[in-house]
Amino acid sequence: MKANRKSRKAALRKVTEHLTGEFRVKQEIKIPEKVIIELISYNEETVIMAENKPLDELFEQYNDGRKNWINVDGLSDRTLIDQIAKKFDLHFLLIEDITNVDHQPKTDELEDHLFLTMKMFYRFDEEKIHYEHISFVLGKNYLLSFQEKEGDIFAPLRTRIKQENGIIRKRGTDYLLYRLVDTIVDSYYSVLEKIGEQVEAVEENISKNPTVKDFQQIQKIRKEFIYLRRVVYPLREAINKIAKNENGFIDENNEKYFADVYDHVIHLIDSLDTYKDLTSTMMDLYMNTINYKMNEVMKLLTIITTIFIPLSFIAGIYGMNFDNMPELRWDNGYFGVLAIMGSIFILMIVYFRYKKWF
Amino acid sequence: MKANRKSRKAALRKVTEHLTGEFRVKQEIKIPEKVIIELISYNEETVIMAENKPLDELFEQYNDGRKNWINVDGLSDRTLIDQIAKKFDLHFLLIEDITNVDHQPKTDELEDHLFLTMKMFYRFDEEKIHYEHISFVLGKNYLLSFQEKEGDIFAPLRTRIKQENGIIRKRGTDYLLYRLVDTIVDSYYSVLEKIGEQVEAVEENISKNPTVKDFQQIQKIRKEFIYLRRVVYPLREAINKIAKNENGFIDENNEKYFADVYDHVIHLIDSLDTYKDLTSTMMDLYMNTINYKMNEVMKLLTIITTIFIPLSFIAGIYGMNFDNMPELRWDNGYFGVLAIMGSIFILMIVYFRYKKWF
Amino acid sequence: MKANRKSRKAALRKVTEHLTGEFRVKQEIKIPEKVIIELISYNEETVIMAENKPLDELFEQYNDGRKNWINVDGLSDRTLIDQIAKKFDLHFLLIEDITNVDHQPKTDELEDHLFLTMKMFYRFDEEKIHYEHISFVLGKNYLLSFQEKEGDIFAPLRTRIKQENGIIRKRGTDYLLYRLVDTIVDSYYSVLEKIGEQVEAVEENISKNPTVKDFQQIQKIRKEFIYLRRVVYPLREAINKIAKNENGFIDENNEKYFADVYDHVIHLIDSLDTYKDLTSTMMDLYMNTINYKMNEVMKLLTIITTIFIPLSFIAGIYGMNFDNMPELRWDNGYFGVLAIMGSIFILMIVYFRYKKWF
Amino acid sequence: MKANRKSRKAALRKVTEHLTGEFRVKQEIKIPEKVIIELISYNEETVIMAENKPLDELFEQYNDGRKNWINVDGLSDRTLIDQIAKKFDLHFLLIEDITNVDHQPKTDELEDHLFLTMKMFYRFDEEKIHYEHISFVLGKNYLLSFQEKEGDIFAPLRTRIKQENGIIRKRGTDYLLYRLVDTIVDSYYSVLEKIGEQVEAVEENISKNPTVKDFQQIQKIRKEFIYLRRVVYPLREAINKIAKNENGFIDENNEKYFADVYDHVIHLIDSLDTYKDLTSTMMDLYMNTINYKMNEVMKLLTIITTIFIPLSFIAGIYGMNFDNMPELRWDNGYFGVLAIMGSIFILMIVYFRYKKWF
Amino acid sequence: MKANRKSRKAALRKVTEHLTGEFRVKQEIKIPEKVIIELISYNEETVIMAENKPLDELFEQYNDGRKNWINVDGLSDRTLIDQIAKKFDLHFLLIEDITNVDHQPKTDELEDHLFLTMKMFYRFDEEKIHYEHISFVLGKNYLLSFQEKEGDIFAPLRTRIKQENGIIRKRGTDYLLYRLVDTIVDSYYSVLEKIGEQVEAVEENISKNPTVKDFQQIQKIRKEFIYLRRVVYPLREAINKIAKNENGFIDENNEKYFADVYDHVIHLIDSLDTYKDLTSTMMDLYMNTINYKMNEVMKLLTIITTIFIPLSFIAGIYGMNFDNMPELRWDNGYFGVLAIMGSIFILMIVYFRYKKWF
Repeated sequence: MKANRKSRKAALRKVTEHLTGEFRVKQEIKIPEKVIIELISYNEETVIMAENKPLDELFEQYNDGRKNWINVDGLSDRTLIDQIAKKFDLHFLLIEDITNVDHQPKTDELEDHLFLTMKMFYRFDEEKIHYEHISFVLGKNYLLSFQEKEGDIFAPLRTRIKQENGIIRKRGTDYLLYRLVDTIVDSYYSVLEKIGEQVEAVEENISKNPTVKDFQQIQKIRKEFIYLRRVVYPLREAINKIAKNENGFIDENNEKYFADVYDHVIHLIDSLDTYKDLTSTMMDLYMNTINYKMNEVMKLLTIITTIFIPLSFIAGIYGMNFDNMPELRWDNGYFGVLAIMGSIFILMIVYFRYKKWF
Repeated sequence: MKANRKSRKAALRKVTEHLTGEFRVKQEIKIPEKVIIELISYNEETVIMAENKPLDELFEQYNDGRKNWINVDGLSDRTLIDQIAKKFDLHFLLIEDITNVDHQPKTDELEDHLFLTMKMFYRFDEEKIHYEHISFVLGKNYLLSFQEKEGDIFAPLRTRIKQENGIIRKRGTDYLLYRLVDTIVDSYYSVLEKIGEQVEAVEENISKNPTVKDFQQIQKIRKEFIYLRRVVYPLREAINKIAKNENGFIDENNEKYFADVYDHVIHLIDSLDTYKDLTSTMMDLYMNTINYKMNEVMKLLTIITTIFIPLSFIAGIYGMNFDNMPELRWDNGYFGVLAIMGSIFILMIVYFRYKKWF
Repeated sequence: MKANRKSRKAALRKVTEHLTGEFRVKQEIKIPEKVIIELISYNEETVIMAENKPLDELFEQYNDGRKNWINVDGLSDRTLIDQIAKKFDLHFLLIEDITNVDHQPKTDELEDHLFLTMKMFYRFDEEKIHYEHISFVLGKNYLLSFQEKEGDIFAPLRTRIKQENGIIRKRGTDYLLYRLVDTIVDSYYSVLEKIGEQVEAVEENISKNPTVKDFQQIQKIRKEFIYLRRVVYPLREAINKIAKNENGFIDENNEKYFADVYDHVIHLIDSLDTYKDLTSTMMDLYMNTINYKMNEVMKLLTIITTIFIPLSFIAGIYGMNFDNMPELRWDNGYFGVLAIMGSIFILMIVYFRYKKWF
Repeated sequence: MKANRKSRKAALRKVTEHLTGEFRVKQEIKIPEKVIIELISYNEETVIMAENKPLDELFEQYNDGRKNWINVDGLSDRTLIDQIAKKFDLHFLLIEDITNVDHQPKTDELEDHLFLTMKMFYRFDEEKIHYEHISFVLGKNYLLSFQEKEGDIFAPLRTRIKQENGIIRKRGTDYLLYRLVDTIVDSYYSVLEKIGEQVEAVEENISKNPTVKDFQQIQKIRKEFIYLRRVVYPLREAINKIAKNENGFIDENNEKYFADVYDHVIHLIDSLDTYKDLTSTMMDLYMNTINYKMNEVMKLLTIITTIFIPLSFIAGIYGMNFDNMPELRWDNGYFGVLAIMGSIFILMIVYFRYKKWF
Repeated sequence: MKANRKSRKAALRKVTEHLTGEFRVKQEIKIPEKVIIELISYNEETVIMAENKPLDELFEQYNDGRKNWINVDGLSDRTLIDQIAKKFDLHFLLIEDITNVDHQPKTDELEDHLFLTMKMFYRFDEEKIHYEHISFVLGKNYLLSFQEKEGDIFAPLRTRIKQENGIIRKRGTDYLLYRLVDTIVDSYYSVLEKIGEQVEAVEENISKNPTVKDFQQIQKIRKEFIYLRRVVYPLREAINKIAKNENGFIDENNEKYFADVYDHVIHLIDSLDTYKDLTSTMMDLYMNTINYKMNEVMKLLTIITTIFIPLSFIAGIYGMNFDNMPELRWDNGYFGVLAIMGSIFILMIVYFRYKKWF
């Protein structure tokens, strides 16, 4: 069965890479060799933090009477994850979803825990969108978080837990989950902002002097939106399921926080759709500007041709070598022809001006 | 946590500016330095108005037995808003929604008040759409309104409240809310009217002599519709929620007023969609007219080329310097060639006429 | 408040005119100066008709034991309408909907009457679609109808009521409403038929020799469909609401008649959508024919250029004045060159034939 | 009222003709002058068939204890149909739907019979789709079928009923209805097959040498799909209503047969949608091939022009008649110029080859 | 009736071939002449396998107290299938669905068995997608599977059943069904992967040097997606029906496995939609690159023409043979004209450079 699953995962990963590889969204290579597990056990009075210890020692610190946050950085050590799964009674398929980094965002309400998996996005440079797969398991007194890669996006929250008078300390692990999810959704806004800047830059270029590069940039941005949509759309359903809170995993007083996150996701989707409209508007602008330039080129060609071809024809006539061509003998024949040519030239110019061609 | 939220707000604001900045919808800079708070406490018999007083004095005038409208102009003084929040028991997240001027329109039904946030639109000149974020909190005997900027759109309503026999005085704060919302929805119509005039102007230009400017104008209008849609679409849901009145915040006799507002919002959305169809029709018209002109240009080029190139060729033949070219010696050779050229010319003209090229 | 509403109505009217003005759908100017009120009170045995009388006299004829149809032609006399509103206890907002001639079709089920407002369409000439706003109020023993303009579309029905053995006389006012609505929906079909004829005419033109005029005609038709859709789509919902008859305004035996009208509206919408598909098919056809002609033009240009430019070059060579050009001295040089030119000409023709260019 | 209905029907018929007339789907003219009525009364043991008899005689044969199928070919004799309506208590509006040959497919569940109306399609030749309007009324022991035109599509079923051991004989009239509907749905497949062959033929032409004819053929096929969709889409709803069998008109054991028909209709719709996608793919292919050819033409034009215009210019220079042109006097001037021309020619060719223009 | 069905099947098959034939998805011809039936009867302790035996012997091995998997390879032997149908009480229409290899995927919940039919996809080479029709019947202690063609995709599962400690042995036939379906869904991913590779290859070609071949390849890929969608979309509904498990065919503990498969199907559809977006993006890219090249060609043509036509005209003037042309007699006339020509040439070049044409 594992062989089976593995081949699917390989295929699935390749599909995902095709879908995202064009705009250079590649996995970071710093996947931690050693998985880092960290336990933060807190209540209103005290905080205990444990890190880099063997799992058994960590579990000794685990205290059912307090709130416990276990954060796992790295998904490579399956044995370790299986141990955690055993401790918290996580189903085999749930572990699959945690370790399958291509899984779409979703929420599952299981018998005694809530499962949420999503993507965490942030953007370092113009070339790459870095993201990671993250999963949460919310139980009665614990919150498990599984990150694909080591990262410090949650660092401010850890600091806040240490502070004695923080609101987090007073509330349950469901509130902590809200804070973590809220932090991740915030990170989407900064991605959107970066892409927004790219959109603006391209738009300015296009309205000035559109090149193939601008077109490729638009295509790149469109693909980024296609991919972002893939990640954000299912999130709506997932967060909504938590906010509805039909199975009571969330304290009633905290429901509105998830409703707030849901509002933000809706706003994100709405912004994405608006951006999508804007990029197709940009495409139109690009095509039109190109067409317009083409038009100008054709006009120039036509003006030049239309003016000089008849003139050349006249010159050609008097370049013929017939013996009997009376005009050639006239004293002012040459100047007369020049005058005629000049008149034709001026008439043509007037005609094109009248037609507003230039 | 505030740092966190602030960074999101900054990103969110930038996103909004990207989405709207292209068509120069910029915030007014006259954000009031001092927040203006105004209390209007009224019942059927008397009206008490208080303005520009410290909050405590204002609250002394507040009377639970009467209907109280507290209008706040400006969202910059957070302390003051927090005081109001405390007085009326407003949740922290609700205050967030009031002060986050990028929030989408929505309605929230909380335990003892109804919350509505929306955008207020009006249009001063051809260049800019001015809008502001406005929020309402409707409680048992009070209505709070929070405006982003100082404005006098509600001035007529204030006058009306002062009038002794006004219907507003007889009814509750829910009716007052209806009147305020109705005033705002009316303002959308004037925006739509202005854009409608632009559409008409552009359409006339295009059908005459389309230029790149007209295309850019169409794009600008399309973006305006995209943005308007963002603001008006969620309003439907928000107003509908109030009109359904599941939690009884609205007096039964006043439900139909909100149903009426809902009708207007539906009509607005419908008009927006129709306008959207019209702009894409206009785009087609523009592209087609451009194509048609291009076609005319190409035809001219082809006619000129097709007529004169063969003629020039004939002239070229008799411009050759061969010793033995009998025609050159003929007495009427020259005139014969001129006659042939004339015939070809006429035949070509007839051919193109027959083909209906001009 | 009236000032307020008026400004909205003005804006709304302008918006509607923008949306429809392009294809010259203008209001008829014959809005009746005097409002005409007519009462038809009937039961199975007798009919009483009263017209052009003061309202009080008319109301004296009104008889609760019989079925009463009051038809109002013209909405300009607000006092009169307010009197009727008072008599039948119509709400202020309902009167607004009756007199607001830009209101979308809709059905409202009120406490003791059913309200339906819709558009009545007919078409006189190629230039204009004439329509008017019409509203119905169906009560227990009465049916009120408010027409924007004087018209005789209901004349056949009046005649039928006068006939002793008509089915209308035997049934209630709900059946009368059905007959009126059915008459209106029928009028849509004749509009559709007219537009259908235009479509056919344009299509024939395009397939022969498409001009800019045809394109403009297509655009005009597309706009007509956009507007028709605006008027017919909401009708579906409105009629469906009546047919469902949840509040019992319609006699059970008459429900199926409204279901039948509903079927016709569905069929109308379906036909509109099909027409819409056809116009976009026509657009494709137009663009393609234009492109094809462009292609032909370019081919001609290319053939002429490709044949004659090399020939002209050869002529140009032997037009050079070098002292030492042996060919020029050859006896048959000229004829040889002519032969070569002829061969090139024929080869070119053969090549283009082979390439199937003409 | 009839006048009224008639004018609608006339308009409706014209609309339908517009919608379908372009691809020459015209009504067969062989509408039977005399309506043919046929009664087949059967049970497991015996079959009685009666045809071409006066209605009263036919009704004498009708037997409530057996299953009776009355088939009416031709809708022109309204008196006769009214008689049948009276016998089986059919509502006036239902008769309207039976005789209105432009009615869309639908199912109505009435008090004591089920009504189904649909289109029967078959295709004789490349030019025409022949179809007819058919309606069924299913009662407790009877099935009425009303065909617009005489036809023998049901002939095999009649034969089968006559056979003693046929399954039809054992089951009720609902099963007979299934068999008839199934036969009709089968006929759609053969239409689809024919169109599919056309699609294939056009596609092959386009990929070889696309002409305007192919484009017109695509347009014709697209219209055929638009029309087919109009006929098949509402069928889904209609058959689904029967298969759901909420009012028990169908024997429970026969429900699955209608579910099977429903499956086929879904498959038909799905195939239609896929074909629609294919035709738009074909349109792209056509446009692209045309564009590609245009491109080739332009390239040829450009190559010829770019090569010969500079060469002609050189020849032109040495065709000038200045007294003092030293080159003309050189002994090898002519050959030198020829060599230069040759070099330019070869360089141009090399350049275009390098640019992969040919 | 069979004749009837057969003709439909023939039509249906042709339709399917049209829809898929273009991209050479043809049936494998190795349809087994002899149908192979195989029985695997297992429980936690033992496994009995029987193959290539007469049906009666096979059925003797069938044991209601164990779990029985009967796999049928090949659908040609109708008698045999009818025997199985009789044994397991399968309805006539269900057998139709099993043997109709063009049937769309669907799930039917019958009285005492669950029926699922779907397509099994795999891809051998660049030219062909090979697929087969597969159906499952899940009863209390048995699972029947009917494959269109002989294949070894289930071989690993057979091996796994033989293993003593496999999870399959411990669970019911519903779990076995899950494993089979899961294997098939996995096979879709490998198809998607192959197409993904093609997409990538084409995209690279296009961005370099687009040819008609690339366009045809895009069209081919688009058709492949259209067909894949036809096969995968209905699967969603089918699997969802099983996962919902309203009639209890699946053990509650196994429900989540089907939910997992459902997730994968959703992911597949999502990936397909994203690919579809990508191909239309690719189409844009192709069209744009072609347009851009066309533009370049036109520019070159215009530059050459615009430079040399005026120069040729000047040469033409001094090629005229007038007796009185003073310039011809000037000593430096020739060199002066050359200088003027040179200046014009340089000015033109500068102008085009300034206009950024090259």
